[in-house]
Amino acid sequence: MVWHSGKTDVTKGQLFRQVPRLLFGSGVISRLGQLLPPIGSGRLFIIDSVLEEQNIAKRLPIGHSDVVEWFPAGEHEPSTAQVDELRDRIVGRSTYLPTGVVGVGGGSTMDVAKAVSVMLTNEGSSSQYQGWDLLRRPGVFKVGVPTLAGSGAEASRTSVLTGPTKKFGINSDFSMFDAVVLDSSLISGVPRDQRLYSGMDCFIHCVESLQGTMINELARSYATQGLDLCTKVFLEGGSDEELMTASFMGGASIVNSEVGVCHALSYGLSMELGFRHGFANCVVFNVLDDYYGEWVNRFRTILRAHDICIPKGVCSGLDSDAMNRMVAMTMKMERPLINALGEDWQDQFTPGEILSLYESM
Amino acid sequence: MVWHSGKTDVTKGQLFRQVPRLLFGSGVISRLGQLLPPIGSGRLFIIDSVLEEQNIAKRLPIGHSDVVEWFPAGEHEPSTAQVDELRDRIVGRSTYLPTGVVGVGGGSTMDVAKAVSVMLTNEGSSSQYQGWDLLRRPGVFKVGVPTLAGSGAEASRTSVLTGPTKKFGINSDFSMFDAVVLDSSLISGVPRDQRLYSGMDCFIHCVESLQGTMINELARSYATQGLDLCTKVFLEGGSDEELMTASFMGGASIVNSEVGVCHALSYGLSMELGFRHGFANCVVFNVLDDYYGEWVNRFRTILRAHDICIPKGVCSGLDSDAMNRMVAMTMKMERPLINALGEDWQDQFTPGEILSLYESM
Repeated sequence: MVWHSGKTDVTKGQLFRQVPRLLFGSGVISRLGQLLPPIGSGRLFIIDSVLEEQNIAKRLPIGHSDVVEWFPAGEHEPSTAQVDELRDRIVGRSTYLPTGVVGVGGGSTMDVAKAVSVMLTNEGSSSQYQGWDLLRRPGVFKVGVPTLAGSGAEASRTSVLTGPTKKFGINSDFSMFDAVVLDSSLISGVPRDQRLYSGMDCFIHCVESLQGTMINELARSYATQGLDLCTKVFLEGGSDEELMTASFMGGASIVNSEVGVCHALSYGLSMELGFRHGFANCVVFNVLDDYYGEWVNRFRTILRAHDICIPKGVCSGLDSDAMNRMVAMTMKMERPLINALGEDWQDQFTPGEILSLYESM
Repeated sequence: MVWHSGKTDVTKGQLFRQVPRLLFGSGVISRLGQLLPPIGSGRLFIIDSVLEEQNIAKRLPIGHSDVVEWFPAGEHEPSTAQVDELRDRIVGRSTYLPTGVVGVGGGSTMDVAKAVSVMLTNEGSSSQYQGWDLLRRPGVFKVGVPTLAGSGAEASRTSVLTGPTKKFGINSDFSMFDAVVLDSSLISGVPRDQRLYSGMDCFIHCVESLQGTMINELARSYATQGLDLCTKVFLEGGSDEELMTASFMGGASIVNSEVGVCHALSYGLSMELGFRHGFANCVVFNVLDDYYGEWVNRFRTILRAHDICIPKGVCSGLDSDAMNRMVAMTMKMERPLINALGEDWQDQFTPGEILSLYESM
């Protein structure tokens, strides 16, 4: 059911995709079954393994033929190797594909569920599809159930994976969820730090979207709303429902615009230092006064209000090879950098400037 | 591809549907072809006949096997009889269904395109499906191209039609567009009055959504953004792109909440006096101080700023039979009235109160 050539559209930033079905509200996880395909050959539930001890499985409509894979999302950023291995295991188990893939967890688990869904129908390694609009076939029907708010992965086309040589997103219309469940009761137990770092991911990509050159009025509306809610949540005691809405709006904004300088730099920190995405973004955003000015001040106000202190000198232990790899990876983030700085971004965002930003973190 | 039972979900107001694909921006109508299915047995273009003299057809990818139906949307509110007749003509012409339905026009044409799409696959008269979740089968793939902003029909599940006995919406997951084209260049030539009345439809249903009992945080976000943009457009010279965004956000909000007292009353005026929907809403909202307080004042500020004067005494020529029919039809609008006033709405919103509101208009 896809007739357009996604590639041209998306490069122009004007084909806006939206998740067609949402369940929203506290406790709606009990209605997940209404969104799922019939069991048939079995559905695949990919669940963040930290949720195992919270007995999450009891709240999910898991049938006899369904398969549960506990994903160790807490260990490190998800990799293309993990996705390929999981896909191979599923394919090896049965001659039939699962009728659906359900991801339950934070942004990493969302990304893995999206990637496995499309790697069940596209050949080769997921590392071949890191980039924009490289997938050739729709994936298996997929549902996202976030248990952490902020990444916007539930609403976006992006599945960020660490590959053999780079951390990079698979970005495709096929890597969007067919349905999502936004249940605020699932995020109520998230540790304070993690909640803030993940929330700041939303704050940051809303800023990157709003300050970027690829923005249009629709994306601006989503980003404005995401940013307002995010600020309200962290400075005025807004609710978990508002945080989930902020995350979804932020993700929806990014679908039709792009991230910017912060994301272009933060992938390097995750790759070389193993920093989680939300935390890495915070470390980077904290030194981007020249790029996002007043927004960085507001970000610091939020951190102070939550007694969170961002470390400094994080790159001091890295050798020059590692620094050069981070600079090289940043330079590959062409679309975010065009969004942030325009087509001639290389004139001002030189390897020297990137290096000095990393050194200042 | 629909597994959930729409009925239960929607009655609870928690299954949120979104149009999965949008093109947004000035001039994107040139890319409509990317959203359409292959011609196959031909696509059906339903176009507001007022656009004929603007040579709209030249801007559309109409092929040899495609059929164009000019719809006289300017004459009166669309009816179930018109939808049935159009459907019968299409079915009579070929043994194959069209591969797609494209609606190009204002809210009425959007509603007709949505209704024809589902009436090509559901038996009987469209009047049988006026209500909530009565359709049994998905319709033909449909694309909405609004040329007037405000109704939100491009984003919503509703297709409002005047039936033999009532003006009422077909409300179903199947009556949502599969894709929409939001091209601000298409609304630039709309007459000033029409632009305002249609824009106030957006303003009013955002207020009804925000002030209603069925609201949740997601719907609140959409309505807040729709209302802010709408106010900006009409009081601070906001752009056509902002007006199109406002309309879309307002429609998206209504998908997950409901309209209220104004819409419950305005259908009666359209039925008995032939008032267009946007205008009828303005006539009603102007007397709803007791229900929407400050919002009515803001509405009047907008009207004053645009030198628009809402007439009074519009019901003075109606006999008591007509007045009673309007009261009876308002009392059928149960969902909007529950949304506005709660489950015990009949305690305060009595036939006497409704009659006196109509008399005050």
